[in-house]
Amino acid sequence: MLSRFHAVIPAGGSGTRLWPLSRSGRPKFLLDVLGGGRTLIQETWDRIEALTPAENRWVVTGEAHADGVAEQLPGLPQENIIAEPAPRDSAAAIGLAAMLIRRRDPEAIIGSFSADHSITNPREFRRVVTEAVHAAETGDIVTIGITPTFPSTAYGYIKTGDRLGLPKAPNAMRAKKFVEKPAANTARRYAYSGKYRWNAGMFIARADALLAQYRAFAPELHAGLSAVADAWGTEDHEAVLADVWPGLESIAIDYVVAEPAAAQGQVIVVPGDFGWDDVGDFASVAQLRQPIPGEQTSVYAVGDDVRLVDVDSSGLVYSTSDRAIALVGVEDIVVVDTDDALLVTRRSSAQRVKEAVKRAKELGFDDVL
Amino acid sequence: MLSRFHAVIPAGGSGTRLWPLSRSGRPKFLLDVLGGGRTLIQETWDRIEALTPAENRWVVTGEAHADGVAEQLPGLPQENIIAEPAPRDSAAAIGLAAMLIRRRDPEAIIGSFSADHSITNPREFRRVVTEAVHAAETGDIVTIGITPTFPSTAYGYIKTGDRLGLPKAPNAMRAKKFVEKPAANTARRYAYSGKYRWNAGMFIARADALLAQYRAFAPELHAGLSAVADAWGTEDHEAVLADVWPGLESIAIDYVVAEPAAAQGQVIVVPGDFGWDDVGDFASVAQLRQPIPGEQTSVYAVGDDVRLVDVDSSGLVYSTSDRAIALVGVEDIVVVDTDDALLVTRRSSAQRVKEAVKRAKELGFDDVL
Repeated sequence: MLSRFHAVIPAGGSGTRLWPLSRSGRPKFLLDVLGGGRTLIQETWDRIEALTPAENRWVVTGEAHADGVAEQLPGLPQENIIAEPAPRDSAAAIGLAAMLIRRRDPEAIIGSFSADHSITNPREFRRVVTEAVHAAETGDIVTIGITPTFPSTAYGYIKTGDRLGLPKAPNAMRAKKFVEKPAANTARRYAYSGKYRWNAGMFIARADALLAQYRAFAPELHAGLSAVADAWGTEDHEAVLADVWPGLESIAIDYVVAEPAAAQGQVIVVPGDFGWDDVGDFASVAQLRQPIPGEQTSVYAVGDDVRLVDVDSSGLVYSTSDRAIALVGVEDIVVVDTDDALLVTRRSSAQRVKEAVKRAKELGFDDVL
Repeated sequence: MLSRFHAVIPAGGSGTRLWPLSRSGRPKFLLDVLGGGRTLIQETWDRIEALTPAENRWVVTGEAHADGVAEQLPGLPQENIIAEPAPRDSAAAIGLAAMLIRRRDPEAIIGSFSADHSITNPREFRRVVTEAVHAAETGDIVTIGITPTFPSTAYGYIKTGDRLGLPKAPNAMRAKKFVEKPAANTARRYAYSGKYRWNAGMFIARADALLAQYRAFAPELHAGLSAVADAWGTEDHEAVLADVWPGLESIAIDYVVAEPAAAQGQVIVVPGDFGWDDVGDFASVAQLRQPIPGEQTSVYAVGDDVRLVDVDSSGLVYSTSDRAIALVGVEDIVVVDTDDALLVTRRSSAQRVKEAVKRAKELGFDDVL
């Protein structure tokens, strides 16, 4: 175990691209999206178990989901659930966690790991995080750079520089800059350059170093979060939260910490190659749901005893109903069948499922959102 | 009304290509497939109402569906429902009807019209049938040849010859031969030749002339049917039916009557152009379900208050459930959503739905068949 290491799990976002599996009241991170028996937040929890003791593990989530998180993670101390009254993006969530953690341990190193991603090799993940924690002892902001496996236009990229030669973090390199989701041509260039890595949103840093970035680059956010952290757990808790939270800037941590720090040469990237995926849409799910050995179909079924009838089709069937599902001559199809809502799309359109959620809202189908 | 004209409606076949809408216990002809408020057999009934009185209208159907037919057609005399213990194809069904009708009226002219086809112009249909009935007074077998509207490979064709110049059937021509469902190239040649017409399976003939063909070309079937007809309605009814019916040859009327008679120059074809379609699969349904004026979607929905969410998709959604159905980036898709079974296919694969039914049977999903 790493001393003074605190793992923060931001559990926000309902995952609209996984509708109708995910719903506003049943967000992606609370679901066993890949059909492996554990929900995404449980798998995230399992991965960090060997890194740090339970009292050093934290979850930041919406008030509406705090009970669900507590239920799914019985080992998580109740006081380590940080409940937000409303979503204010990752900078607020992680910043507040950093402040509460620093209050407990001024020399804490924190790492943030999304509640709803997938990692196929947790052992290698822990090796890389350990390296990142050592690199963070320098006082720089450390991020993990995933080896691109295809020219994704859905992920941000990190441009890497020279190797730093840190004794306990031998693979650590300087991060030269962060690049937002690129267009297809640029993504192709990045992916095959050997110089760019995916930004998986994993930041590891000393709490004080992280918060110094907030103070410098988002002073109002820093002040608001400080007021909230000071009142946290006191009798003023509710009042201050109600007063301050709605006014906080809603911004991703990348803009507050990663990009400015990189511009000042204060970001380190540790390369990671542990089968990471953000499970962002059903195309991801289809890819992650590997065929079971001996499976004689090109349609992957996720669900309990899916009653599938496949005639010359391929793709993914995700079923939480007990209906028979017949596919006839449809290729690369994605069918998500639930009791009250059905989605039919293709892998190549999986990113656009969020448009269906928006449209359903316009149509007033709130009961299925 | 036409004197001595009897209309026979063969109501057989479950319509497996329309599964999961149609089921073995809920065949296509008993369903309002096109969403117009009347079932296919009711529409068939409505079309012939002005041609002949109710006592001259007959339905041949399976024993299992006799009650359903009686319920949907309250005007049909109970004794005009001919219930078959098991399906024996169209030659047995129409032959038996012809015998029972001839017994009542030795000079009857009968016409057979499938229970599960669609006709957009019933008025023109009646005009053409009237012409066919007059042509049948010659003693020849008369068929209606539909003007092809596209090079269908799903229909049989009739090659037409010279016009006969019959006074009361001015458009009647000699039928030169019947051709089974052709390959695509041949279908193209036929459809654009002006010489070939679709065989819609509508035969009009004097009962005695029709049965003479049976006697000549299917003597065993004729003998079996005669035995059944002689016992019909007597105390021997059940016993003879149980004894004879299972041994009857299962064959289409085309092989017993149409083809041999055409070879002898004894078939007349009356051209028909009244928007006929056999509603054979969901591609047909999609075509027949015209967009409602002002409808702002390329997805046609059939069902009561279908809760459709369409994002850049096209095709047909057929819903008998009250679930929300979202289509995202799927073109020419066919989705049929029922309470216990779901079908996803494309228009171009609609003919293959019967393969899904076969596969579902192999898988033991009998509850949804």
